[in-house]
Amino acid sequence: MTLPERAPSADAAALLEAARGGQRRALARVMSMVERGGADARRLGMLTFAASGHAHTVGITGAPGAGKSTLNSALVSVARERAERVAVLAVDPSSPFSGGAILGDRVRMTDHTFDEGVYIRSMATRGHLGGLTLATPLAVRVLDALGWPWVVVETVGVGQVETEIAGAADTTVVVVNPGWGDSVQANKAGLMEIADIFVVNKADRPGTPETCRDIRQMLDLSAPGDWDPPILTSVGTTGEGAAELWAAVCAHRTHATATGELAAQRAARVEAELDDIVRASISQRVATLSGSPLAQQLRERLARRELDPYAAAEMLLAETC
Amino acid sequence: MTLPERAPSADAAALLEAARGGQRRALARVMSMVERGGADARRLGMLTFAASGHAHTVGITGAPGAGKSTLNSALVSVARERAERVAVLAVDPSSPFSGGAILGDRVRMTDHTFDEGVYIRSMATRGHLGGLTLATPLAVRVLDALGWPWVVVETVGVGQVETEIAGAADTTVVVVNPGWGDSVQANKAGLMEIADIFVVNKADRPGTPETCRDIRQMLDLSAPGDWDPPILTSVGTTGEGAAELWAAVCAHRTHATATGELAAQRAARVEAELDDIVRASISQRVATLSGSPLAQQLRERLARRELDPYAAAEMLLAETC
Repeated sequence: MTLPERAPSADAAALLEAARGGQRRALARVMSMVERGGADARRLGMLTFAASGHAHTVGITGAPGAGKSTLNSALVSVARERAERVAVLAVDPSSPFSGGAILGDRVRMTDHTFDEGVYIRSMATRGHLGGLTLATPLAVRVLDALGWPWVVVETVGVGQVETEIAGAADTTVVVVNPGWGDSVQANKAGLMEIADIFVVNKADRPGTPETCRDIRQMLDLSAPGDWDPPILTSVGTTGEGAAELWAAVCAHRTHATATGELAAQRAARVEAELDDIVRASISQRVATLSGSPLAQQLRERLARRELDPYAAAEMLLAETC
Repeated sequence: MTLPERAPSADAAALLEAARGGQRRALARVMSMVERGGADARRLGMLTFAASGHAHTVGITGAPGAGKSTLNSALVSVARERAERVAVLAVDPSSPFSGGAILGDRVRMTDHTFDEGVYIRSMATRGHLGGLTLATPLAVRVLDALGWPWVVVETVGVGQVETEIAGAADTTVVVVNPGWGDSVQANKAGLMEIADIFVVNKADRPGTPETCRDIRQMLDLSAPGDWDPPILTSVGTTGEGAAELWAAVCAHRTHATATGELAAQRAARVEAELDDIVRASISQRVATLSGSPLAQQLRERLARRELDPYAAAEMLLAETC
């Protein structure tokens, strides 16, 4: 048996071909390869890059419980009414052991289960280095190369990695709830930075106008760009506001295309991805080193202060390259 | 002329010796070496590690304008009344071009200018990789090895790097102002996590009791440790509350020493520093690669989609190791 890290399985190309022919089971296996990373994932990256670059990606992020999945399901319904085909990636950077919540969320997406124009996939990684930072753009690229014109990337929480992933979409939607403006919350500034569109979801609750006003004030404090993020309201459970959200996504796409910002940002993201891949490859080497008997020995010598961290780093690095 | 990245200057050891003898100008040059990073910094790391591990470090952080410098100056006065020798590092991760503010702040420290028992140094880095994340623990270690029993690390703002730096001290003091509890502020959760002691400074202003109560409530929401962070009040400009702050710092030190937490955290920080150094070295290599003609050529091919990022990464990495 060959190690997946060393030799890519011959299946990658064949599976991709089957997925291109519309076989959902083949696509599911391709996406599992992406999640696992390693040689198969690299091969998929090589096989799909030339055919990609056509899909518009939409990132949806916000705190757990904000109603992202429900709103996203309503948004997909609107897209389908307009005969648009949509792929959804639900990205969960938490460990596979806490995967229960996302499975529960996905249940709300069952409306679209038998629709050939919708593809839904939950994504997690088995903790390999680079993880979702590398796996997500690759998963998007595979769907893009297979001809999906819209790829929605929904993240479960608002951790730094999730914010980066959602922010790397062509259009980023930040979903909040009434009261968000005055609540204590980590990463609020990070969310303000990445939002192309704000949605105050659960807008049937009190405090919605105040929250819209608070967001407007926070936006006014930041440096003005040539796109002024709209602040929409929605009730995900009834689908209220989903059509307006779809219209706003399309308006942002038109704007970013016209200004050349879309092309510039995509080019910058490919370059950043190259750096991420290089960094992950080197980190992989360091992690391998870190678990080595040498590293253990160095840590013991550090604890006894026989060796300083700079000398230990040099000794460790001398083993890699 | 040799490149500082390759060959350490022979001065590092001699300067350190002169600084040990009490020469302030030599110490200033040593600290500049730390700031610059590279081979001299690594050499200083190697020369000081064995003699270090005796100083107690105090991190002081909080939003700009919270009055950290003024309070810190009052704290140093209290320490001096108790015949304790104190070194202060004012850490500013912003670019050298915005260095004006910190110079202004430092003026308030002039009370201690002619006191041999006080050493004050502003620290910035010239943007080199690893930056203050590596330079600060090294600067602390140098002062520690030179026999300073107390090293206070004061950060200018509450960015992620600054919070990490202040949180890496043996005792971390978070300085806020009346009204902090209900204000919208980035990184509030981050500050709650690292605080061993809270100080509501400018406590002569309205809203002080409410802010103390808000902090208490926020603390009650977090997981209880065996140290319950006290919430103090102060007026930095009059020195009110500084003696109580000093007492709280000493109480925390006694507690952390007795429980073994101090030793455990220090050991963990040295291991984390090893990882940081390894990571910075790798980033350095990636950056060097990234500026190479090969990398430029690969980026152009990426833009034309002749090459995918995975293949480009492989070609780039084949050049390093």
